[in-house]
Amino acid sequence: MRNNVEIITIGDELLIGQVVDTNSAWMGKALSENGFSVNQITSIPDDKSHILTSIANAFNNADVVLLTGGLGPTNDDITKTSLCEFFCTELVFDEPSYENVKRIIHGMGKEMDNELNRQQAMVPQACTPIINREGTAPILWFERMDKVLVSLPGVPHEMECAMTNDVIPRLIEFFERPSIQQTTLIVHGYGESALALKIANWEEQLPSPLKLAYLPQGSYVKLRISGEDSDKEALKRMIDAEVEKLTTLLGNAIVAYEDIEPEKILTNLLKKKQLTIATAESCTGGTIATYLSKHPGSSSFYKGSVVSYCNEVKHNVLGVKEETLERVGAVSQETVEQMAQGVCKLMNTDIGISVSGIAGPDGGTDEQPVGTIWIAVSDATQVVSKKLQLGNSSRSRNIEKAAIEAIFLAKEFAENKK
Amino acid sequence: MRNNVEIITIGDELLIGQVVDTNSAWMGKALSENGFSVNQITSIPDDKSHILTSIANAFNNADVVLLTGGLGPTNDDITKTSLCEFFCTELVFDEPSYENVKRIIHGMGKEMDNELNRQQAMVPQACTPIINREGTAPILWFERMDKVLVSLPGVPHEMECAMTNDVIPRLIEFFERPSIQQTTLIVHGYGESALALKIANWEEQLPSPLKLAYLPQGSYVKLRISGEDSDKEALKRMIDAEVEKLTTLLGNAIVAYEDIEPEKILTNLLKKKQLTIATAESCTGGTIATYLSKHPGSSSFYKGSVVSYCNEVKHNVLGVKEETLERVGAVSQETVEQMAQGVCKLMNTDIGISVSGIAGPDGGTDEQPVGTIWIAVSDATQVVSKKLQLGNSSRSRNIEKAAIEAIFLAKEFAENKK
Repeated sequence: MRNNVEIITIGDELLIGQVVDTNSAWMGKALSENGFSVNQITSIPDDKSHILTSIANAFNNADVVLLTGGLGPTNDDITKTSLCEFFCTELVFDEPSYENVKRIIHGMGKEMDNELNRQQAMVPQACTPIINREGTAPILWFERMDKVLVSLPGVPHEMECAMTNDVIPRLIEFFERPSIQQTTLIVHGYGESALALKIANWEEQLPSPLKLAYLPQGSYVKLRISGEDSDKEALKRMIDAEVEKLTTLLGNAIVAYEDIEPEKILTNLLKKKQLTIATAESCTGGTIATYLSKHPGSSSFYKGSVVSYCNEVKHNVLGVKEETLERVGAVSQETVEQMAQGVCKLMNTDIGISVSGIAGPDGGTDEQPVGTIWIAVSDATQVVSKKLQLGNSSRSRNIEKAAIEAIFLAKEFAENKK
Repeated sequence: MRNNVEIITIGDELLIGQVVDTNSAWMGKALSENGFSVNQITSIPDDKSHILTSIANAFNNADVVLLTGGLGPTNDDITKTSLCEFFCTELVFDEPSYENVKRIIHGMGKEMDNELNRQQAMVPQACTPIINREGTAPILWFERMDKVLVSLPGVPHEMECAMTNDVIPRLIEFFERPSIQQTTLIVHGYGESALALKIANWEEQLPSPLKLAYLPQGSYVKLRISGEDSDKEALKRMIDAEVEKLTTLLGNAIVAYEDIEPEKILTNLLKKKQLTIATAESCTGGTIATYLSKHPGSSSFYKGSVVSYCNEVKHNVLGVKEETLERVGAVSQETVEQMAQGVCKLMNTDIGISVSGIAGPDGGTDEQPVGTIWIAVSDATQVVSKKLQLGNSSRSRNIEKAAIEAIFLAKEFAENKK
């Protein structure tokens, strides 16, 4: 039986839609991966009586109540004083918290404001304060009748750092949770239903402590195998054995054995094989380029891109033949192959990726409906290409999907390259 | 006094963090812009007793309860049958809903599944079904004791379409809300505090039915002036008069008089002046290109881009002089100006935009710390450039900010261009 958690996010900005609450999804994921079950998320305004009612309800229904937000300098008092009222306690000065405020303020090259900063180091006497490694507001840990309440800052990186390093480890210890193990596989080339059908027999024989989750991502599916057991090593061996069976079943369709973004699968491979890459994009308009340059250190494999949004640039810059463009048009196998070869030559790289298609919502014809997109990958001697039919449901989704498919095609090409 | 709304979002995927709930922020924004006040958002699992408890609580505290999700084919029964239980009613077949299911299924080029599709057209007898314009699950409108409950699909575009066209107009009518008017201004060139200081005196004299909201967006601030009054025309005149005063105060810093994305401000101007554009990007890696090609119809003004992630491409493709790169380096005024001029010439466009800098987290020096980014805009005869110092807090934020600053610089350049 998992311990129940309720998350309460505090802030007027959440209710008027100025800020999307991404904290609770992050917390929900981290908690369920660590053996806790989130049974409600509640967003409420910076209002004392509302805060008190919500805390009381959550404490009735759950073993753990996690609060985020409402600790900023302007509304500092509301959350902390509400907690004092709920736990019948009062604010006291905490020296380690004050030292931490100093460290953070000085790290930003700022001066201390004595009154304001002293106030940030005041904590309810009934709690155990935990140092906020990335900010000034201390994390407040309360225990009452075998239950726990933790108040966390609302700034995402501060909350994530505190959850990962302090709160989750302490919760696991407090509730004596069994060990959780999990492995995520990235599967490309099957839709969710086709994949479910393909692995149905395997899924049926999955031993009881293990659970399978399908996380479809549009162009690929994440498969998560997880389990909890007191014997950590045995659990790990059990998962490894199931992953091996899946590998036999799915072969190359498993493109990664960890929870990783598609572009990272490609760029890790490029780094390992010391290959350089460039892109020539039409309808994806620079999306693949943005993916390749998104992570630090990209300059070791990524040299550049051409976005050729018009035929003139396809011809003048990438060297696509005028005759080709006239005869078969920009959205064709010949054009997209010449684009890949052209950018490879222009930028002097080992590999070139290209895309040309109709992202929509307009521009489709009977022969080439919206969503017809060609992708290609080449080096100096070879070129491979593929036609996608993505339909007309969303321009942005078509752009996204075409970019991810091109990245997977390049990954396959790089793998086979000597 | 505004009418209170509670939003309940239903779905296991929200609690395990597989999906971020963006629906409730969207609804919160739309509702508060239309004179309603959201006082709680609750996310709960696909569990009947939990759904019933949450609905009962929400009905106690609010005038309007909005439900999203839990209407998919796999868990169809849970939300609809829970609602039947709550309102003591039963499911009946609804012919118009069935016709709509047919229309949607055929529109996707799919065949009807008689049993499943008939089930989708079953609605609680106590409700008024509203046709879902973009999907198969009908919207369910319930009234009880001067209060309203509406069950909406969880698919974002279906929910947004139904809220905009059906639910909000009906709520305004049902509760006889006074008219809401608002105008959003986009202000560029002031941080939030500097702007607040600059317009402090004006803000103080703002007449009482009007309210001001600062919505900082990183590179710019959205200022929203709103008010509600039964006299729609008088309210509109009052807002217009205040906007005029602000224009005198802020001048060119107001870059738009509507709630619009920065790239749309630029591309609308390009279309109006029939100017074409190309980009040459280094550290932004294609982000500006992606912005320019994001919206349908971009090909009328956008010709293409070069991402020159290495010096070789800056020289060979964009024509930046080798001597310049050696003498002052890639992150310099001279290089970025030559990049803008180079891409303008290469792609034969009226305007070229360029960016070169150190996005971080590595690559900084004492003279050029991380966050040093040059941007430039040129045509055949002129070039303007600007140095940004964005610091080392986040690579992705630096890329984003540099792209937006370059878009604003191009907008200014295009405005002044004959």
